[in-house]
Amino acid sequence: MLSNFRQIVIRTIHPRLLNGIRLSSSDANKSPIETNVPNDKWNLGKINHIAVAVPDLEKSSHFFKNTLHANSVSQPMPQKEHGVYTTFVDFGNTKIELLLPLGDKSPIKNFLEKNKSGGIHHICIEVDNIEEAIKDIKQKHIRTLSEKTRIGAHGKPVIFLHPKDCCGILIELEQV
Amino acid sequence: MLSNFRQIVIRTIHPRLLNGIRLSSSDANKSPIETNVPNDKWNLGKINHIAVAVPDLEKSSHFFKNTLHANSVSQPMPQKEHGVYTTFVDFGNTKIELLLPLGDKSPIKNFLEKNKSGGIHHICIEVDNIEEAIKDIKQKHIRTLSEKTRIGAHGKPVIFLHPKDCCGILIELEQV
Repeated sequence: MLSNFRQIVIRTIHPRLLNGIRLSSSDANKSPIETNVPNDKWNLGKINHIAVAVPDLEKSSHFFKNTLHANSVSQPMPQKEHGVYTTFVDFGNTKIELLLPLGDKSPIKNFLEKNKSGGIHHICIEVDNIEEAIKDIKQKHIRTLSEKTRIGAHGKPVIFLHPKDCCGILIELEQV
Repeated sequence: MLSNFRQIVIRTIHPRLLNGIRLSSSDANKSPIETNVPNDKWNLGKINHIAVAVPDLEKSSHFFKNTLHANSVSQPMPQKEHGVYTTFVDFGNTKIELLLPLGDKSPIKNFLEKNKSGGIHHICIEVDNIEEAIKDIKQKHIRTLSEKTRIGAHGKPVIFLHPKDCCGILIELEQV
């Protein structure tokens, strides 16, 4: 699908096509792909997983395994310290992490009360230096949901960013 | 992160750890990874993108480019026939597709009215034979949001599956 992405980039937008809608103050002067601001202390990595809260882990595993024919669907793992059971569906390039509440204080309990059928809860993005990333991101007025990192389900430091500061997405940063 | 995934699979759950919570009628007899049911007519592929509806494309692009230091963020593209502007953020393994409404009949207009800050709208999964996939999935009582495929933003046939039948996730299948 990289070819598709390139195709989209090559057919870069012409300001005339925007029908007068202002997406940016300087669209006409921008290059098709804009590289990031120089950053020598930390780097963003891949999307590690998309987390989906579900009310029934067996039914959801069955859906991915037997309806969508996903190549590998792991067994449920209790993550007591995180208040969830996890099951991973591997798509080759990234994973879906199915989450079922474990215990009364599960962090996904409220989410499932609002979303009875389940739903996408967060996405997890890898970073190579989480402490530097947090320092940098906080300076840019992005709030974190905790003061410090904690050890995530993969045994590595993680932190969540406030969805209101991140396009409405609950983003988990994970050290790799 | 594949190593992590393997690690999780190897440390497969022991039924005793489940604390009496029934996730499955036959957990004890299952192998760590369960392969899919034989399927010779179509195959599930990678996660092509995660689509995020946003109220401000410039601000969202800025967030990924300058706050998270994403390597490449494309210019906005108007997709008149789909009622959206699209911007792609490439993470190497998959992409986030930022969507801004275009026109009064934009399919993401209602979603943004309910989610003012934006939010994850759908995920797109690749399939190698979309017609066979639809036939198979419909037989398994999964509803589609349209009777037939239409041509998606990448110029390839796509169809959306009903989120209530898919763990609360709006899933777009895309022919590759």
